[in-house]
Amino acid sequence: MRKFNIQSPDAGIREALQNKIDNLTKPKGSLGMLEELALQVGLIQQSLSPELRNPQHILFGADHGILAEGVSCTPKEVTWQQMGHFVQGGAGISFLCAQHSFKLNVVDSGADFDFPAGCGIIDAKIRKGTRNFLYEPAMTQEEMELAIERGAEQVDAVYAQGCNIVSFGEMGAGNTSPSSMWMSYLGGIPLKECVGAGSGVVGAGLQHKVDVLMGAAANYENAQGTEFSKSFGKRESAGAGHLSGGNREYVMEIMRWFGGYEMVMAVGGMLRAAELGMTILVDGFIMTNCILAARELYPAVTDYAIYGHCGDETGHRRVLDVLGAKPILSLGLRLGEGSGAICAFPIVVSAVNMINQMDSFAQAAVKKYF
Amino acid sequence: MRKFNIQSPDAGIREALQNKIDNLTKPKGSLGMLEELALQVGLIQQSLSPELRNPQHILFGADHGILAEGVSCTPKEVTWQQMGHFVQGGAGISFLCAQHSFKLNVVDSGADFDFPAGCGIIDAKIRKGTRNFLYEPAMTQEEMELAIERGAEQVDAVYAQGCNIVSFGEMGAGNTSPSSMWMSYLGGIPLKECVGAGSGVVGAGLQHKVDVLMGAAANYENAQGTEFSKSFGKRESAGAGHLSGGNREYVMEIMRWFGGYEMVMAVGGMLRAAELGMTILVDGFIMTNCILAARELYPAVTDYAIYGHCGDETGHRRVLDVLGAKPILSLGLRLGEGSGAICAFPIVVSAVNMINQMDSFAQAAVKKYF
Repeated sequence: MRKFNIQSPDAGIREALQNKIDNLTKPKGSLGMLEELALQVGLIQQSLSPELRNPQHILFGADHGILAEGVSCTPKEVTWQQMGHFVQGGAGISFLCAQHSFKLNVVDSGADFDFPAGCGIIDAKIRKGTRNFLYEPAMTQEEMELAIERGAEQVDAVYAQGCNIVSFGEMGAGNTSPSSMWMSYLGGIPLKECVGAGSGVVGAGLQHKVDVLMGAAANYENAQGTEFSKSFGKRESAGAGHLSGGNREYVMEIMRWFGGYEMVMAVGGMLRAAELGMTILVDGFIMTNCILAARELYPAVTDYAIYGHCGDETGHRRVLDVLGAKPILSLGLRLGEGSGAICAFPIVVSAVNMINQMDSFAQAAVKKYF
Repeated sequence: MRKFNIQSPDAGIREALQNKIDNLTKPKGSLGMLEELALQVGLIQQSLSPELRNPQHILFGADHGILAEGVSCTPKEVTWQQMGHFVQGGAGISFLCAQHSFKLNVVDSGADFDFPAGCGIIDAKIRKGTRNFLYEPAMTQEEMELAIERGAEQVDAVYAQGCNIVSFGEMGAGNTSPSSMWMSYLGGIPLKECVGAGSGVVGAGLQHKVDVLMGAAANYENAQGTEFSKSFGKRESAGAGHLSGGNREYVMEIMRWFGGYEMVMAVGGMLRAAELGMTILVDGFIMTNCILAARELYPAVTDYAIYGHCGDETGHRRVLDVLGAKPILSLGLRLGEGSGAICAFPIVVSAVNMINQMDSFAQAAVKKYF
């Protein structure tokens, strides 16, 4: 697989950044998370006066073979229909991108539909939906590597347009199921705690979803012929980051066995964004599991990540904790599309405005007010 | 005291609003708090297509006699200096108002300073600081009534400029102390749970602050010659809204005995804003105690209130719970000035954009995507 060169930002500037923040005209620390975000963006950009330029949203869409098992109440057609809706306007992500001047890039990662040329959707299709991971790997190694590459290419494109803050979102009927699998295997969290309602599966439907995913895990582990299954469900004791950077082969195996093309592309995009020194806005449950996978491949990627939203989907808080992430918002959103990341953007803008526009005590002291 | 005519918004439109929200192209409820805020603003404006027009921030500043007791680490001069800073730009509230296009109105409610004419600060001064409520009422009945009136006048002024969403903030060295007194007496919460660090009082200083405020409570209760002190500290069992609308004389007595001029003006402003059918953005600890006082006078005022931020100041969560309030943000802000309210504004904008700009399922169904 393509190698990325991702290093943590040089910490040499940290003290100067913290001094600048501490000397703004306010009690130290009194702007809370704005101060933390200003420090992070300053570190990423290696600047005492960071700027957010040409924000862009990349929304990957794809279909999932596992949907055939009845794990979602969203019909497959909704994937391509909503992707059309996004480019034409009027969807949830549309008004949010418009409000915050995000350019919206809708990418066909693997929808089971033939989009006409010129429709406004970027063609990066790997295949018309993944295979059904209850019985076989969702994708081949080659497909996964191609998806990583094409995700990175999307980021190259927005970077070339002067963008230095990029947000990722997704559309894919049924994609909380692959996300739950990644979360369990890559986060070391028992599968049952990783499965939630998605777009509205409750009661017996939720139990069925759990059963299907447990079955998929069992089939995967049998197929490996390893001792792995014996430890399954005990791995929560391994703690956060237990795989971090340590076993890329295993991480990639989980990614390809259970993943969606839109998810793998998001991983590729996040890795490339970090490599380019861009700030990454992470959305809700699905995108949080993508940054988890990205971190297990390249631990330093999270230094570039800002978490927009903690949703109500079961397990989202758990995976955020595994990442040591502190999301900006908690508004009960569960739409996907990247809505939580875009909603949080103005808070990041406030942080950057703070460090650039507030007076220092020294500046204020020489002002004559009256 | 001036009477306000504050009614809950007519609920007749609620079902139509909820239907409109439920029929937007998203799983029902999936935009969480955006949906709740859209419903509330629609109710306030009695409109299925609410609009936020000419947002304005009113920042009341005043000094406090209680500061002489060493309850704060902020020197008194900071009040007038910061008020000057606000009108000249470069302060915390300055960049936030600029970011979200709020007109900033800085009002001298009672700073212990002679501002020159034409300096940009609105003159509504009642007196150069309140009296020391450790020994006597902070203000007279006449002063309190004048402060209510002048607070209402500030809202009249912004309303006349076409503003329909108004945010309130404050500046006043030492004003977490009067806020704690209001919170305890009006919220029915033991005083010790209402006292926090303010702008940085910790350790022995915090114990001193508690002692001073406990002394002020004892002196007040002795002066009343009532049995009140015997029940003090037990009133938490009375639950939320135990005074609500029931005993205006008592509420006004607490307001004038312990209050600040900036706080009473904010109460007057909130009441007038509700009377005019405006949306009220409530800031942090101090403004939350002002809306608590406003509610104890006119319970329906909270139907017009959106809570911007839950801060870390001890007791803020408690008083929000007493109000049944669900704040939008929790960013660890403790600057005051209205910073938490203004930071939250873009989320309210998102809610209004949602209801106005998203397609309904019916609209989406007749679209031809490809």
